[in-house]
Amino acid sequence: MTNNHLADTLFSLIERGETRAAAELFGKDHPADIAATLAAAARKNPRAAWAALELLPLPRQAESFGYLDHIAQTRIAAAAPRAKLARLVTEMNADERADLFNEMSGELAEALLPALAQAEREDIRRLAAYEDGTAGAIMTSDYATLPQHLTAAEAIEKLRREAPDKETIYRAYVTDAGRRLIGAVRLQDLILAPARALVGDIMDRNTHAISVHDDQEHAARQIARYDVIALPVVDDQGRIVGIVTHDDAMDVMQEEATEDFHRTGTVSPLAANVRDAGIFLLYRARIVWLVVLVFGNIFSGAGIAAFEDTIAAYVALVFFLPLLIDSGGNAGSQSATLMVRALATGDVRIGDWGQMLGRELLVAALLGLSMAAAVSLIGVVRGGPEIALVVASAMVIIVIVGSLIGMTLPFVLTRFNLDPATASAPLVTSIADAAGVLIYFAIATAFLPLPG
Amino acid sequence: MTNNHLADTLFSLIERGETRAAAELFGKDHPADIAATLAAAARKNPRAAWAALELLPLPRQAESFGYLDHIAQTRIAAAAPRAKLARLVTEMNADERADLFNEMSGELAEALLPALAQAEREDIRRLAAYEDGTAGAIMTSDYATLPQHLTAAEAIEKLRREAPDKETIYRAYVTDAGRRLIGAVRLQDLILAPARALVGDIMDRNTHAISVHDDQEHAARQIARYDVIALPVVDDQGRIVGIVTHDDAMDVMQEEATEDFHRTGTVSPLAANVRDAGIFLLYRARIVWLVVLVFGNIFSGAGIAAFEDTIAAYVALVFFLPLLIDSGGNAGSQSATLMVRALATGDVRIGDWGQMLGRELLVAALLGLSMAAAVSLIGVVRGGPEIALVVASAMVIIVIVGSLIGMTLPFVLTRFNLDPATASAPLVTSIADAAGVLIYFAIATAFLPLPG
Repeated sequence: MTNNHLADTLFSLIERGETRAAAELFGKDHPADIAATLAAAARKNPRAAWAALELLPLPRQAESFGYLDHIAQTRIAAAAPRAKLARLVTEMNADERADLFNEMSGELAEALLPALAQAEREDIRRLAAYEDGTAGAIMTSDYATLPQHLTAAEAIEKLRREAPDKETIYRAYVTDAGRRLIGAVRLQDLILAPARALVGDIMDRNTHAISVHDDQEHAARQIARYDVIALPVVDDQGRIVGIVTHDDAMDVMQEEATEDFHRTGTVSPLAANVRDAGIFLLYRARIVWLVVLVFGNIFSGAGIAAFEDTIAAYVALVFFLPLLIDSGGNAGSQSATLMVRALATGDVRIGDWGQMLGRELLVAALLGLSMAAAVSLIGVVRGGPEIALVVASAMVIIVIVGSLIGMTLPFVLTRFNLDPATASAPLVTSIADAAGVLIYFAIATAFLPLPG
Repeated sequence: MTNNHLADTLFSLIERGETRAAAELFGKDHPADIAATLAAAARKNPRAAWAALELLPLPRQAESFGYLDHIAQTRIAAAAPRAKLARLVTEMNADERADLFNEMSGELAEALLPALAQAEREDIRRLAAYEDGTAGAIMTSDYATLPQHLTAAEAIEKLRREAPDKETIYRAYVTDAGRRLIGAVRLQDLILAPARALVGDIMDRNTHAISVHDDQEHAARQIARYDVIALPVVDDQGRIVGIVTHDDAMDVMQEEATEDFHRTGTVSPLAANVRDAGIFLLYRARIVWLVVLVFGNIFSGAGIAAFEDTIAAYVALVFFLPLLIDSGGNAGSQSATLMVRALATGDVRIGDWGQMLGRELLVAALLGLSMAAAVSLIGVVRGGPEIALVVASAMVIIVIVGSLIGMTLPFVLTRFNLDPATASAPLVTSIADAAGVLIYFAIATAFLPLPG
């Protein structure tokens, strides 16, 4: 809201050539806030967004640009003159710059690369080499290293000289002659130590490091687990090649939560946020599961067809059909939800299935009995005591079976190295539905006398 | 797994009195890893967990204990001798200590409080006064402040003296004589500044602060937005009373994501993680929605009952019933999922409903047409061209209506200050089901000739 309004004001100021007023409007905003305004502006008019961004001093330009998501970045980059864009890109953080090059069109990247210095070009090439979704792809090369033979005073002096270039100097990494990681030292500890103490003696040798090939989610979880500001990333030879910082870890956890959330809602992972995603991107993310689930439903339909005689004789049974099968599906998706999230956060592991199963059975039995009690009343009113008995006993079994399907599916998917979040509510519901139809009509056929 | 195994080994060592071997087993583990082992041990034998914890030096004891979740903490605390527990509690971080007192039994807290020093007692009372879920409840009082008249060198010296007590000194807060927050200064900037520069001149006056009354989720989002290590918390008079750190922010985001995840799976928020939650806690978290949804289903049932004549005349229609209404429900829960998450991450705001609606209509129409094409084939085979026409046209309308219900419900809930995540897949499915039944049979009754 506010950002759209701000963006609108900004447009009209720039269009009227009142750049000074526009610059004042940005004034002392935090780069994150500037980025929000720019993103809103870039949706309507990337040229005006660039004109506004250009009004800022270069370091603030680069910082604000770094806060934009990739869609807004590429929109604005496409509208900027090459030479000026190259200046901005040179000023950006190494990891954000590499990401930008990954996202921008090949044509633009090729036009831009020659305008950059050799060092930046190599940095981009190196960071871009890591596969998407790995620690290597989200790490930054803006970190500080120290040799272990420096004194605390010398180390502080070295960090002082190099600090302005580094994303974080609160923790410096200690390396041997071959750049292999041998420890880490906090700025705090350097300041607290006697000036002549050696880095090698102060440092913490027990430094957790992650591999460039590790999953980005693993990297983020390690940062959350150990409550650190950053974790060093090492290559196969144990040499430090970058760090993953806490803010990137937070973004990754958000992204992964969104992906799991979407997946359990049978929406395939989106490359953009919902606001910026195009019609066909949204269509593609949804159609596959809708069709898969339709064909899943054919089993329920076939199940119903198999009992056409029973249905024709007791049409009242149909009244309870949605109620029963939905209850099984609902109980199942509850169980799946609990397990998917617990597996994602690490609260539950694949080996805990047996232990979880026992508890699930108890909880499901309690739920089934409660639901049966509620529904048998309606059964008596709508269909008489015989129907009520069929409906109530079907309910208990359907809720138990649905719950067990729901809690087991995420474990099965994990076992086959699939994302447990694929055990979405609708998928569990589809499977539980088919099971529910069979259970319901099998019980009905067994209990109720068929005419003829 | 590993932790359970480690915990088992630890038990047997302690039971055999081999405390030295047990202590070695813990040896150089990170406190977070020690905590994981202890949590597994506490599930089976809190006494042994305490015995193992006691083997560590006091600062490591406190740190490891701080990494435990509340259930494991209270289990172990209940098994520890009061005097030793008081020593451990005194050593803990202020925020973790206050949380522990909130969670432990009133009896234990009362027995423990007199054993603590006056300063810790007041700290606990003060931190415990803030309502659960606010920034005040998650903040810590371990932060460093500086007056603005100090020089950079004096400031570093002051932080050096106070540092060992503070959770983070990377950013110190500058206050006036009345403890009102007037700025912040990074340790990095103090080191880089000339030794005689004044704190008041180096500091960043544009410091984002949050109120003690702000929602914890708001605090976490601000930290993520501005990529900072910590944010200061101020009271109504603008005085600094604590800080919220990036690791707490990450925990809050995880918690909130889990809560939203559970809510969209119609599981009410759990007070414990799934592994530790008792049978009745799980039962209570699930039964309410199951019953609500059953009664919701009665509308679908009543809808079906109203068209009993049509059904009796064309039993083949029942075959397509689950398929059609589930497709509407599935499309609806996809839309709801996208909107719930986008509203939670702030990608979409309540005022964007109109804009989102237009796109949703287009996407839903495309989805509906694709689904109709898929289903009309089966319609021809199973029921002839007339049934196929009814089923296909019902499909288009049902998918569009389901999608619109799904995308609108989260906005409606937000408007009434309810959690949009309440628009769970099963709730949307229930509503879309009832709508689907009416649409399907209304179209069937209109198109197909009734006998008699």
